[in-house]
Amino acid sequence: MPKPQDSPNMVAPESQDYKFEGWMGTNPDSAKGQMVWQEFPDVKKFEETDVDIQITHCGICGSDMHTLRSGWGPTPYPCCVGHEIVGKAVRVGSKAEKGIKVGDRVGVGAQNASCLKPDCYECAAGLEQHCQHMVGTYAAKYPQGGTSYGGYANYHRCHSHFVMKIPDQLASEDAAPMLCGGITVYSPLKNNGCGPGMKVGIVGVGGLGHFGVLFAKALGADKVVGISRKNNKRDDVLKLGADEYIATDDDEDWANKHARSLDLIVCTVSSPKMPLGDYLTLLKVKGTFIQVGAPEDKLPDMYAFAFVLKGIKMGGSLIGPPWQIEEMLKLAAEKKVKPWINTYPMDKANQAIQDFEAGKPRYRITLVNERNLQ
Amino acid sequence: MPKPQDSPNMVAPESQDYKFEGWMGTNPDSAKGQMVWQEFPDVKKFEETDVDIQITHCGICGSDMHTLRSGWGPTPYPCCVGHEIVGKAVRVGSKAEKGIKVGDRVGVGAQNASCLKPDCYECAAGLEQHCQHMVGTYAAKYPQGGTSYGGYANYHRCHSHFVMKIPDQLASEDAAPMLCGGITVYSPLKNNGCGPGMKVGIVGVGGLGHFGVLFAKALGADKVVGISRKNNKRDDVLKLGADEYIATDDDEDWANKHARSLDLIVCTVSSPKMPLGDYLTLLKVKGTFIQVGAPEDKLPDMYAFAFVLKGIKMGGSLIGPPWQIEEMLKLAAEKKVKPWINTYPMDKANQAIQDFEAGKPRYRITLVNERNLQ
Repeated sequence: MPKPQDSPNMVAPESQDYKFEGWMGTNPDSAKGQMVWQEFPDVKKFEETDVDIQITHCGICGSDMHTLRSGWGPTPYPCCVGHEIVGKAVRVGSKAEKGIKVGDRVGVGAQNASCLKPDCYECAAGLEQHCQHMVGTYAAKYPQGGTSYGGYANYHRCHSHFVMKIPDQLASEDAAPMLCGGITVYSPLKNNGCGPGMKVGIVGVGGLGHFGVLFAKALGADKVVGISRKNNKRDDVLKLGADEYIATDDDEDWANKHARSLDLIVCTVSSPKMPLGDYLTLLKVKGTFIQVGAPEDKLPDMYAFAFVLKGIKMGGSLIGPPWQIEEMLKLAAEKKVKPWINTYPMDKANQAIQDFEAGKPRYRITLVNERNLQ
Repeated sequence: MPKPQDSPNMVAPESQDYKFEGWMGTNPDSAKGQMVWQEFPDVKKFEETDVDIQITHCGICGSDMHTLRSGWGPTPYPCCVGHEIVGKAVRVGSKAEKGIKVGDRVGVGAQNASCLKPDCYECAAGLEQHCQHMVGTYAAKYPQGGTSYGGYANYHRCHSHFVMKIPDQLASEDAAPMLCGGITVYSPLKNNGCGPGMKVGIVGVGGLGHFGVLFAKALGADKVVGISRKNNKRDDVLKLGADEYIATDDDEDWANKHARSLDLIVCTVSSPKMPLGDYLTLLKVKGTFIQVGAPEDKLPDMYAFAFVLKGIKMGGSLIGPPWQIEEMLKLAAEKKVKPWINTYPMDKANQAIQDFEAGKPRYRITLVNERNLQ
């Protein structure tokens, strides 16, 4: 696949000689493969801190589907989803951060803006994703006007603070899904000490969970255990690099057999029916359970005793800040992290989201915008 | 009050020339003030690592009441409760740890034994309270035989690893309730960074919560907020040293007014009806909520979103290991931590537990065994 930097003499298009168009959800049924290709009606005005990106790749994330079907509350249609964007910088403001230049291969994750004020507790602490003025990459409004539109599209406009250069060693179709799916699991792994000396479990082996296994290994955990319901993912999980696999529907007495064996569990699924008590049984004393799935339902019933007796903690984690996404990309390049990606042409986005919903990807889908690959 | 070390020439009694006797619960009604004074039928055999303590003081802890009434499952009656014991070492085994000598003023908290094996993950990590072979100070069986009996009594026998010397600066009636009540809140405060730069909330201002306010201040937190239901504890909490008080039943819109203001909350109460979601609203991004109450009921319903959106954690904490109890006592002595204690004669233990259950103590009761104060 030719990379943008292969064309160093490419001339940047004049501002706005390209149209912002993409696959739009216009109602909850769009999640069933009924997105329509339209021009974006309310693109934000270009600012000197911004970068315009000609999109070559965009991953499909579970959040896209929740948003298309209004699963997390009413979506402001029309809405273009996709927040695992890779492409070529085609316009760079004079005040852009990080030395981004026209022609650079860059990416954007699930966040497009935050207040970035020095007196903001979250922004000053490098926790931009938790800023109260966080603007999502799609379906959100900018305080200065304009709507954010995602990456199932030709172009994307974003504040340079949230634009990451992609290391040369990473293929675009692999880098794209790291920008949300990857960081969603990398961040809690890294923040909770995943590395040598740690035994780590990853619950749920789908798009997020497969990144969980890959990054836990890349971070040097002593042992990585994939945990899913059925036996049928065992081979894949071991191929991904896990040291062990637990099938909670198929392995008998698994919780007691593996009790007190893990320092850290990152849980990528969430349902009121999941055996949360049994997952906590797997934790060692003072262990940590981090939930990254964002379910529409309540968690299973919990008793304080479960937490008190072993001194364990349960927490949540939300994507990650730009500096940590850059750290993750660097590690992925160094350790040759190779996600399992199914590519679909951008033209087939409606088919791709139907296959995504049917659980077909092994384990993540990247849309490839072939018109922008020259 | 004369302290044991005031009688340095006291001769140690010969082994077993004293009887192990105390207030025994014989059925769940004993929690209503119907304990009976009896000899202990199954005291463990003295080992060379043990210390016998002539009890001068014993605090009353909520666990005592749960155990007397079989609230945490069936209690093995007859049972003598009390695990906040202070007294005089009257027999010290030849292999006792920590240089404890006959005549020393010493204490025992809620734990009497653990395996202490070098290959025990918990014991080796200084987390003895989480050892799978943990033996509670009462209502438990020793692996080598014998039953543990608590401190509403004349004498107590305990492995020296779990016996702490009491610093001279602390009065016995103040030190006793620190050994369970104090460490229960000190440990999660210390383990979660309470100190300069931290803003800390204490939910529930009873025996545990009042220690929470005292120790959060002693540890140097920037701000300590007492949180309870009613306005009527406001004055006490401010007198204890808190910087602010929230009455959740009486202060309007308190959760939003104080949203994202605390780094750490230690919660000493627990009920399925408590406003857990509102407590979590008080946390800053990446804040921590630690539950130390051990309720018989389930926790309120929870949603993963509450944890994910702010990246917060909820955990539990169980007493503390001996080394940390010693650290706490040293800090209490240095910082002149002065708990609010109501003393009752040991003879009036049945009255004391009824007053405890009626919520009368402000804020902790210590039984004083006047026969052993010479």
